[in-house]
Amino acid sequence: MTQPWSPFQLYHTAGRAPVVLVCEHAAAEVPPDFAELSLPPDQAQSHAVWDIGALNLARGMSQALDAPLVAGGVSRALYDCNRPVEAPDAIPTQSERICFPGNADLTPAQRDLRHRLIHDLFHAATAQVIAAQRAKLDTPVAVVTVHSFTPVYHGEKRALEIGFIHHGDPTLSIAACQIEQSKSRYRAALNAPYSRADGVTYSLEKHGDALGLHTTMIEVRNDLIADPTQAQDMAIHLADTLRGALASLAKDAAKDRPA
Amino acid sequence: MTQPWSPFQLYHTAGRAPVVLVCEHAAAEVPPDFAELSLPPDQAQSHAVWDIGALNLARGMSQALDAPLVAGGVSRALYDCNRPVEAPDAIPTQSERICFPGNADLTPAQRDLRHRLIHDLFHAATAQVIAAQRAKLDTPVAVVTVHSFTPVYHGEKRALEIGFIHHGDPTLSIAACQIEQSKSRYRAALNAPYSRADGVTYSLEKHGDALGLHTTMIEVRNDLIADPTQAQDMAIHLADTLRGALASLAKDAAKDRPA
Repeated sequence: MTQPWSPFQLYHTAGRAPVVLVCEHAAAEVPPDFAELSLPPDQAQSHAVWDIGALNLARGMSQALDAPLVAGGVSRALYDCNRPVEAPDAIPTQSERICFPGNADLTPAQRDLRHRLIHDLFHAATAQVIAAQRAKLDTPVAVVTVHSFTPVYHGEKRALEIGFIHHGDPTLSIAACQIEQSKSRYRAALNAPYSRADGVTYSLEKHGDALGLHTTMIEVRNDLIADPTQAQDMAIHLADTLRGALASLAKDAAKDRPA
Repeated sequence: MTQPWSPFQLYHTAGRAPVVLVCEHAAAEVPPDFAELSLPPDQAQSHAVWDIGALNLARGMSQALDAPLVAGGVSRALYDCNRPVEAPDAIPTQSERICFPGNADLTPAQRDLRHRLIHDLFHAATAQVIAAQRAKLDTPVAVVTVHSFTPVYHGEKRALEIGFIHHGDPTLSIAACQIEQSKSRYRAALNAPYSRADGVTYSLEKHGDALGLHTTMIEVRNDLIADPTQAQDMAIHLADTLRGALASLAKDAAKDRPA
């Protein structure tokens, strides 16, 4: 019997915070419908196929903030929903040192299937959750994407622990990064370990900047959220940072309003 | 911790038959995100909240035909994806003799949330699966919806066992019904126990007639598919009927072509 799959999972859509969380790389699943991409067992749970710990972190933040969450339902090795459609690594043939030979010789119909059923439906869901949240609250909402990165990249250890990355509008990222740095608990930086120039702000641009909404992409080093308890602690920590950043933006906006 | 949900589940999207199956009422699930609709335990698995046996039937047909299937992921008591958007029973306040008081006084934002996250995303998925199947095969595809009905309705026993219902284009329904009747195994009829006039052909119209594709809605009396073994037997039986009907349509189309 065939197995069901969905390109996304929705969490806490009844939430009332002016924030929508998006976790594109939440899942390691490769449904049997995509038999052409067969992964050896040692890759099936690696960072190449998902962001380790990111879903637990995002779920914890969803609960702590009272915010809806849209999480990817399948592996980014099938289709990377945080890449522009024209990017060669939207359907990756390799990731760092891992190759995906099953993605090398896809037919146009196989690409079309992944594009429509993974990319298009994931982003349709994200757009609808954001639109529903705006309608529910009758206010703008912030779009926050949640990611994790590896402690070692191409053999080099990374000292950074938390990054805030922006696309066009830097205000929320700057506010969150300043609060995070002032807490002095984690090494935090703006636009690290990646930035817009690396092509990682597709979701921010598509769902935030395009609608004039504040956005930030949060990157957490995955050894800090490797188990559910760690991820939950980090979720509470980052929810507090984000709440502070949103409050400071709201204060600035109020100052700009005519008396 | 909040629980994930999706408005649809996809099955066997790698299938190569010129058919897409759709099962709008496949699921009885009411995710905790919709706490306003609280169902008493004796209703939670009744025909009022889903089509009993329909998912097992549709999955069996998907496998027997080698056809993709889009199945609803949540109860029709939340949102009936086979009703026109403007229909009062799209968010039902009652079904036969069961009332849903939790649906009676929804806020506009609660209606908007259900409409966007259930209706819009379910039909986006259906449209994309159909488009991908057409691109994959480079042929038209038939859209077949799979439903079940109760043996007793408003106190009256129903003799009918299988119905084929059409919207604008009756050809596939007529062909399938004729084959089914000629098999003399089940009592089959055209446009029964419901018809277009009852407002049950929304998906056929939206995804089939609107694109010039052949469609039919198959209704099976649910006592014939109550357990998975029965549903599997019926799936093989109906897959054969449908395959025959599609072959007869293809023959007619070939006759109409200039020599």
